[in-house]
Amino acid sequence: MTGMATERTAILLMHCADQQGLVAAISEFIARNEGNIVYLDQHVDERRGIFFMRVEWELARFRVAVEAIDKAFDEAIGQRFGMHWTLSFSDEVPRIAIMVSRLPHCLYDLLSRWQSGEWRVEIPVLISNHEDLGDVAEQFGLPYHVLPVTPENKAHQEQRLLELLRAQRVDLIVLARYMQILGPQLIANYPNRIINIHHSFLPAFPGARPYHNAHARGVKIIGATSHYATAELDAGPIIAQDVVHITHRDPVEELIRKGRDLEKLVLARAVWAHIQRKVLCYENRTVIFD
Amino acid sequence: MTGMATERTAILLMHCADQQGLVAAISEFIARNEGNIVYLDQHVDERRGIFFMRVEWELARFRVAVEAIDKAFDEAIGQRFGMHWTLSFSDEVPRIAIMVSRLPHCLYDLLSRWQSGEWRVEIPVLISNHEDLGDVAEQFGLPYHVLPVTPENKAHQEQRLLELLRAQRVDLIVLARYMQILGPQLIANYPNRIINIHHSFLPAFPGARPYHNAHARGVKIIGATSHYATAELDAGPIIAQDVVHITHRDPVEELIRKGRDLEKLVLARAVWAHIQRKVLCYENRTVIFD
Amino acid sequence: MTGMATERTAILLMHCADQQGLVAAISEFIARNEGNIVYLDQHVDERRGIFFMRVEWELARFRVAVEAIDKAFDEAIGQRFGMHWTLSFSDEVPRIAIMVSRLPHCLYDLLSRWQSGEWRVEIPVLISNHEDLGDVAEQFGLPYHVLPVTPENKAHQEQRLLELLRAQRVDLIVLARYMQILGPQLIANYPNRIINIHHSFLPAFPGARPYHNAHARGVKIIGATSHYATAELDAGPIIAQDVVHITHRDPVEELIRKGRDLEKLVLARAVWAHIQRKVLCYENRTVIFD
Amino acid sequence: MTGMATERTAILLMHCADQQGLVAAISEFIARNEGNIVYLDQHVDERRGIFFMRVEWELARFRVAVEAIDKAFDEAIGQRFGMHWTLSFSDEVPRIAIMVSRLPHCLYDLLSRWQSGEWRVEIPVLISNHEDLGDVAEQFGLPYHVLPVTPENKAHQEQRLLELLRAQRVDLIVLARYMQILGPQLIANYPNRIINIHHSFLPAFPGARPYHNAHARGVKIIGATSHYATAELDAGPIIAQDVVHITHRDPVEELIRKGRDLEKLVLARAVWAHIQRKVLCYENRTVIFD
Repeated sequence: MTGMATERTAILLMHCADQQGLVAAISEFIARNEGNIVYLDQHVDERRGIFFMRVEWELARFRVAVEAIDKAFDEAIGQRFGMHWTLSFSDEVPRIAIMVSRLPHCLYDLLSRWQSGEWRVEIPVLISNHEDLGDVAEQFGLPYHVLPVTPENKAHQEQRLLELLRAQRVDLIVLARYMQILGPQLIANYPNRIINIHHSFLPAFPGARPYHNAHARGVKIIGATSHYATAELDAGPIIAQDVVHITHRDPVEELIRKGRDLEKLVLARAVWAHIQRKVLCYENRTVIFD
Repeated sequence: MTGMATERTAILLMHCADQQGLVAAISEFIARNEGNIVYLDQHVDERRGIFFMRVEWELARFRVAVEAIDKAFDEAIGQRFGMHWTLSFSDEVPRIAIMVSRLPHCLYDLLSRWQSGEWRVEIPVLISNHEDLGDVAEQFGLPYHVLPVTPENKAHQEQRLLELLRAQRVDLIVLARYMQILGPQLIANYPNRIINIHHSFLPAFPGARPYHNAHARGVKIIGATSHYATAELDAGPIIAQDVVHITHRDPVEELIRKGRDLEKLVLARAVWAHIQRKVLCYENRTVIFD
Repeated sequence: MTGMATERTAILLMHCADQQGLVAAISEFIARNEGNIVYLDQHVDERRGIFFMRVEWELARFRVAVEAIDKAFDEAIGQRFGMHWTLSFSDEVPRIAIMVSRLPHCLYDLLSRWQSGEWRVEIPVLISNHEDLGDVAEQFGLPYHVLPVTPENKAHQEQRLLELLRAQRVDLIVLARYMQILGPQLIANYPNRIINIHHSFLPAFPGARPYHNAHARGVKIIGATSHYATAELDAGPIIAQDVVHITHRDPVEELIRKGRDLEKLVLARAVWAHIQRKVLCYENRTVIFD
Repeated sequence: MTGMATERTAILLMHCADQQGLVAAISEFIARNEGNIVYLDQHVDERRGIFFMRVEWELARFRVAVEAIDKAFDEAIGQRFGMHWTLSFSDEVPRIAIMVSRLPHCLYDLLSRWQSGEWRVEIPVLISNHEDLGDVAEQFGLPYHVLPVTPENKAHQEQRLLELLRAQRVDLIVLARYMQILGPQLIANYPNRIINIHHSFLPAFPGARPYHNAHARGVKIIGATSHYATAELDAGPIIAQDVVHITHRDPVEELIRKGRDLEKLVLARAVWAHIQRKVLCYENRTVIFD
């Protein structure tokens, strides 16, 4: 558990074509340099022949200086195996921008996790296409930017949004029931770094008004799906999903009410997995290390 | 609980346009005739303005003779309120035909519930489009009819199937992973009396190979759906659904394995609800009394 | 759904010895006075021979004046059947006191449901035995009373607490991870009106440190239980319970983290059921109408 | 997934005091000998300082002969790290004895998984303290031994049982609702090789009549727990648990009915984990590799 390590750790997420000796080489690199592994999980997608791994080790006695690890790892392992990898450190605090529209339930949930110290993150900015939730931002002492979107100003607002995100050095964008389709430039600039919550168990009921569609179809479960936003709507890599049982007694309003609790829970799980560096994407799918 | 009543009971399932005094009139009809209500559940779909009710009462001291109840109820209540209703009795034993193809897990589960006395039903006949599961039928002492279906003989086989079902006075057909689309005549003859199990959380992944499609999409849950078969494939009224969580570690084979347990459970729940007379259909939806 | 009715409704919760004609008499009373039933659920505990019912009807055209309904019902039904019953109205707004100690997650959740208008309740007062969460109260604009409890001042503080609750005309007390045993007088004064959240699936792991005990026992699920507080610790009538799966990978800290989400969800469900007047208690058990 | 490997694999389950270089040494041992790792999962219990690992590799090109692996591994790794380890091979077929009393639901479920080929196991013998389920054994073509137990013959019958198990070279004993406490000698002879199913979410409701106790306590969930049998009743290491929601509508009979489905599912999951060599025990807890 990253969250449990009291010492500073290094975290490697990697994937490459499966080949013999991968685990041995990686763990030998860490052991040779006196790193103590506290987490190692490996997965092979046999159909696709891809190797995935997350490894985390304590840095206290590690012989390679923190700023030299990536070069050392790349030379020893990365190049040799043709590996895609990212290195991060447990003491890096992610900077999150939250985007909302009018519904506050996910926003309250995220902000209370931040404010109470449950999550060690920074939230430098809230962004919305509506004025409505400005009071919540103020109550939590956060800046609130309103960027209303119309067909005419869409491109312009996307540009302003990008500038804002850059100025705030944002690592992750969380769409907390932001009911506006993102522009392609934004998505291209934050690959696998925009987390959305959709209020159905995708791929069922994509698009607008999923609860109404669920009610019309007479399903016995409703769900929520958190995924990375991609150019194709509601089709990005799924990070977390959950469902709740409903009955014929539940009118649409009740689906919406029950769904709200699910949405905030599933979104929080997805964001938590991401900030723990436990999510790895490939071919529109995710590997979630647990 | 029907299953719990030690005495013989009458069960009424009804629905009609919502109007004042319905519950009063129905319960007064039963009370006046000295029936003791052991179950009453009522539901109003406010959007559609439809009233639904299931009521069950003990017949021990009921003043109306069993064979005269339907006439008495129709005159006192049914006609007055323009009601759709069905009357049944707790001691009627449903006759079930099970249809299978090659996968045995649902079949074993249904047969063991029957043979152990968990369900009070009769299973006069097993029908398949393949020879494969004949041994299982024999082991449980049941007749096994093979009706192989080809594009050429489809209409003819459907006719034979209908004759077989009629000859056996079948009340309910359970498609226990029967991998063949039913003919329109069969469906028309058994409205809301053919229960199918589909191996996904419909409406996600209809049609063939849902586990492969679920794996390709990278979902984090898989499901099973039991529904009444209608003319439109995988689109009939849903009776029961459930899901199970999966991870990136699960290859398609593992989805199939985990799904199997879900399928037999969800199918059994749907059949149980039906034979307890707790399912009421309208507008391609179900009311499931609990 | 009370929450869905746009018109003002009356709600009756009742139980009595089971006897013939109960439903007929009650529904006839409402129908005769031109009330339109929007919810009726009835349950008979056959073992104990107890009848339970929740009925809700629209008052728009009801012939009995609101202030005269209890007298009229008591004369027509209540006395005749020896019934325990409570009458309430959908437009009555419950006044809730929240008691906390140091953990904020349930508090944030409750306050956000209130502030966002998800729940139509009033929260006139927050009470704690610690200073810690005063900032959260202030942020939401609510008065925060600190009543530190020591063995010496326990009786005195209970008296102050009672006065505070009375002065604020509190209908319901929610113990949102309040880590102090309540005094007997308080419990006696608010029977079935104090809702607690316990961080285990009771009756497993009562008392202190349930997550540590769960971890030591090696269970594969953890849970949360919301119940009415009674004189016996962790033994009151259970309103809501839920669980989440854990694995050997989860250290105690992770159980605490996962449990937090469960606690706030289960507590919210229990409070919601209570304020919807859907909970009825008898013999240390609850009937939860849905 | 062991079950998925088409080639023969070796499986190592190991634990020892946590120390640096463990993963490197183990994976290097396999890589050096040309083994291709298809599964590796590692876990460190930081509180206790224990390292756990399951590793599985293909034997096709492995340079060490199958019968020499244990010696080679012990010399290279086992002794060096003071490791507890067990080696097995994917083509070893476990021999399971099933013990039952009068309830057939778990038995049917286990036998159908075996007979249909879902599980690759052998079931050389069924044992019971009652005659009742002999017909089921016969139907599945299996020998059925009745060993009735009385206070007088308990020691003698345990001896006969042990002889029977030895004669059949039984690897695993599954107590499929066997309602008789096992003798200490049997338990001592099959450590972590006797799997029991208990019909509650332990540690809640240990001992007899858990459903009656659950109903009396008014819980909102019931559960089932599968665990290894130890000398202390219902206190052995938990392998699998699951729960199902219930309501006030469910009388004890309905808890028993709903529980039955849970019991067979949870027992099957536990047996499956065991025969996949994915369970490792220590200090009355289990590590379940997934």
